[in-house]
Amino acid sequence: MAIKTKSIYSNRGMWLENIINDVNTYYLSKDIAVIYKKPTPIKVLNVCYRSKKTTIIDKAVFAQTSTLDYNGIYKGKYIEFDAKECKSTTSFPLSNIKKHQLNHIDNIIRHGGITFLVIFMNNAFYLLEGKVLLEYIYNNDRKSIPFEFIQSNGHKIPEKYFPRIDYLKIVDELIRSEL
Amino acid sequence: MAIKTKSIYSNRGMWLENIINDVNTYYLSKDIAVIYKKPTPIKVLNVCYRSKKTTIIDKAVFAQTSTLDYNGIYKGKYIEFDAKECKSTTSFPLSNIKKHQLNHIDNIIRHGGITFLVIFMNNAFYLLEGKVLLEYIYNNDRKSIPFEFIQSNGHKIPEKYFPRIDYLKIVDELIRSEL
Repeated sequence: MAIKTKSIYSNRGMWLENIINDVNTYYLSKDIAVIYKKPTPIKVLNVCYRSKKTTIIDKAVFAQTSTLDYNGIYKGKYIEFDAKECKSTTSFPLSNIKKHQLNHIDNIIRHGGITFLVIFMNNAFYLLEGKVLLEYIYNNDRKSIPFEFIQSNGHKIPEKYFPRIDYLKIVDELIRSEL
Repeated sequence: MAIKTKSIYSNRGMWLENIINDVNTYYLSKDIAVIYKKPTPIKVLNVCYRSKKTTIIDKAVFAQTSTLDYNGIYKGKYIEFDAKECKSTTSFPLSNIKKHQLNHIDNIIRHGGITFLVIFMNNAFYLLEGKVLLEYIYNNDRKSIPFEFIQSNGHKIPEKYFPRIDYLKIVDELIRSEL
């Protein structure tokens, strides 16, 4: 058993996470929306108290989440979404989303919230609504979503200098289409 | 420097957290609301990869949060709150709430969300609205809130067998009073 020590910041997923965090910081600074990334769930197995002020955790593991990574409030509405980088150019693997997360998406929709995925694929950002994702899964016995489906049924998020992806512009369209 | 190893579940705060988690699980199971505790923020300092499937974190510290612990959706509305146990019988120390959290409460109110504290004090549960908390802080140059203020301006949450505190009943009153 080889034990290798490595910085967690080398994770591929951090690239997209950093972009989304920057956009959310921009929204907060301009008083547009209040959206945060939830902390990564970590199961603490052991702590050693060094002093009264600092607690050092010396054994822990990453835990699974049953919700999505980002949530908050925009124009009085509840928003929750996840961001996924997809290596494949042809299809988005559904193993990216856990069963609990699909139930959670369904719960949010039924309670009147806005939920979606931001997918980075083939060098572009797409917003795929939760209800479109669930409909696809219920109607197709497949383990992945073809890229063509995401292109046709998702919303391409335009890129600009800053903020890089103004995803709430797409959310505005979704809110307008519901009225 | 003495290093002491101790289970984190002996934390006093876990008692109230467990009660709130049970209430939220009840709300979810009855399809009343979708409210979760956010994971405790932990700053990972080092990980050692044992295998492809399990990552062991061998150095981490608890980090501060700038938001509140619980959030979710109820009747299409954004809800965020924190739960605090108060040992003092005479006043609730404002050191319990950080400056960032006060800004966050202000942000949520301005964006149309519902935000409050659940305070356990003198053997009873009180819901104190975010706006009442902020008004108190702006108008009083004090480091704590007297218990009498919480009794007069907060809402006592009735206790019952299950769920122990049905705090959304008080939220219903708040929603009705806003209409």
